[in-house]
Amino acid sequence: MGISAQQVKELRQATGLPMMECKKALEESKGDAEKAKEILRKRGLKVADKKAHRETKEGLVGSYIHHDGKTAVLCEVNCETDFVARNEDFQEFTKKLCMHIAFADPVCVRREQLDPELVAKEKAIAEEELKKVPEAKRAMAVEGKLAKGLYAKKVLMDQEFMHPTYEGKTVDEALRDLVAKLRENVTINRFCRMKIGE
Amino acid sequence: MGISAQQVKELRQATGLPMMECKKALEESKGDAEKAKEILRKRGLKVADKKAHRETKEGLVGSYIHHDGKTAVLCEVNCETDFVARNEDFQEFTKKLCMHIAFADPVCVRREQLDPELVAKEKAIAEEELKKVPEAKRAMAVEGKLAKGLYAKKVLMDQEFMHPTYEGKTVDEALRDLVAKLRENVTINRFCRMKIGE
Repeated sequence: MGISAQQVKELRQATGLPMMECKKALEESKGDAEKAKEILRKRGLKVADKKAHRETKEGLVGSYIHHDGKTAVLCEVNCETDFVARNEDFQEFTKKLCMHIAFADPVCVRREQLDPELVAKEKAIAEEELKKVPEAKRAMAVEGKLAKGLYAKKVLMDQEFMHPTYEGKTVDEALRDLVAKLRENVTINRFCRMKIGE
Repeated sequence: MGISAQQVKELRQATGLPMMECKKALEESKGDAEKAKEILRKRGLKVADKKAHRETKEGLVGSYIHHDGKTAVLCEVNCETDFVARNEDFQEFTKKLCMHIAFADPVCVRREQLDPELVAKEKAIAEEELKKVPEAKRAMAVEGKLAKGLYAKKVLMDQEFMHPTYEGKTVDEALRDLVAKLRENVTINRFCRMKIGE
């Protein structure tokens, strides 16, 4: 079936991806724009997975200083090349991530950085609450409870990105989308959040 | 002896201290401006010592972001009141302190925060080098060697303030001068320095 130039253009604007990829996705979805977006998203995640082990030595230290000077955030976001570090999408992501951190107040970047004692305590609580779940499924149910509770509250990667641009996505999902778009591995190395009186 | 209004004015400009204090110091030094500065400085240190135990819950998170976005610093500087947090001298100190940290790369704010193993190692080296010093004086000599070496290199408070405004002063000395001027305790709580590629 024929895909119009207008359709391709609209999908490009929505996703920021190259023309040929948008055209192929639309052909695959038989012209359905929403399906095409889903196809591109899945393909993007594959790209992100493939890039995930590439070394990131370049990057940017993003910052957000609240206007009253009482709250401030730095976040080191790494990429493979300085070319990407100067890319507008990369810089925007970094800036918005710092704003997110200022408001959402995570304690660490990744789950494995959480205090093991805290995780053990939360796990014990979840296991108690889910003791009626058949044993074969319990571990997964407990993990699910932690994901929605502790991790979503305290772990940057698992938090919902508090910015309209990334509505409904976690930080991890927004990061994977960025990787897919930039075609380069991007990692969040560390952040620092200071607030007077905390 | 008579002190002219011009002398008082000049001393005020040099020190930023109140007129009456400048006048008194000039009377005490019999009109010698340099001696008067020294008198004010010593008085200031006494003031700083008196204020040192007052609680500091207000303050500012200072920041310095290098223009290339590859180096950034936050530093939490605390004071007693929000009035002082909005004072120009306080804000200037905070800003310049962040610039200093970006360039001088300290590892901690105070000596007691240094890695104890590192301190023990440096102490052992100094003791070996100073073994000909009489035992009664050796501990002090070792401490002096550490102060000029390890502490001056790695500890923020002991570093020479890398800014023309504070030439020849350590960060600790510049901080005490600020306390004397503001008449309020000021403390450096913590800093965070990020540099891409480090």
